[in-house]
Amino acid sequence: MIDPIGVIHSPYKERSEAPRQGRHSDDEIVLEVFGQFSDALLDIESYTHLIVLYWGDRADRGVLQAIPPGRLEATGVFACRSPNRPNPVAFCVAELISREGGRLFVRGVDALDGSPLIDLKPYVAALDSIPAASRREVAR
Amino acid sequence: MIDPIGVIHSPYKERSEAPRQGRHSDDEIVLEVFGQFSDALLDIESYTHLIVLYWGDRADRGVLQAIPPGRLEATGVFACRSPNRPNPVAFCVAELISREGGRLFVRGVDALDGSPLIDLKPYVAALDSIPAASRREVAR
Repeated sequence: MIDPIGVIHSPYKERSEAPRQGRHSDDEIVLEVFGQFSDALLDIESYTHLIVLYWGDRADRGVLQAIPPGRLEATGVFACRSPNRPNPVAFCVAELISREGGRLFVRGVDALDGSPLIDLKPYVAALDSIPAASRREVAR
Repeated sequence: MIDPIGVIHSPYKERSEAPRQGRHSDDEIVLEVFGQFSDALLDIESYTHLIVLYWGDRADRGVLQAIPPGRLEATGVFACRSPNRPNPVAFCVAELISREGGRLFVRGVDALDGSPLIDLKPYVAALDSIPAASRREVAR
């Protein structure tokens, strides 16, 4: 049902090389949007941050529980940020550094090299930002 | 490539009835997670907000540009939040009100009734919140 709109070029060839989350990455990543979708990029450079959705094509889709880093017990994959999940649609908020045609240079993406790009949306704080939202964070 | 993990029950039968964005909705929406994925929900009630990814099954996938509300000129669908886009994976940050087994009662989802649920992730402010991120917002 999903047709990739592009491909992600990153320095991470293996999961062990990738940051645990995109937010922890300072590397410059290239989002290459295929030519037939270039009209859909109009005005994208007016945003500083983008929601990047990509397909975790090397994820294990059969995993339903995982032990998050720093914890001792398993939790459901819908309650943690494990890349392994039934539909591995990965979500990052990336900083848009520059655009050259269909190539977007961004920071803050944890994708393995060659991951299929699914969708891009502008990040809008009024819609997308909920400071210190989780009960666990609040409790700290 | 995507297998729905559940289905969304909402009061919105038509696009015209739905809020423009999930954040603008006060209605209680039910995310029904199918039984075979219930193990993946373990601990989800420890979060107040969830990232909800669903498939906009009534979207027009051929649209590459749209005129956002309140504007006069077309912009690329990757630079706006139109539900119409090549891969209509919709993104909402929803407030989790309560859980009854595989049924999650949430607020802040703009999905049409019957939309396929793709993925759930806990919203973590340290990863996902970028206050007033866009240049357009900053410029106001």
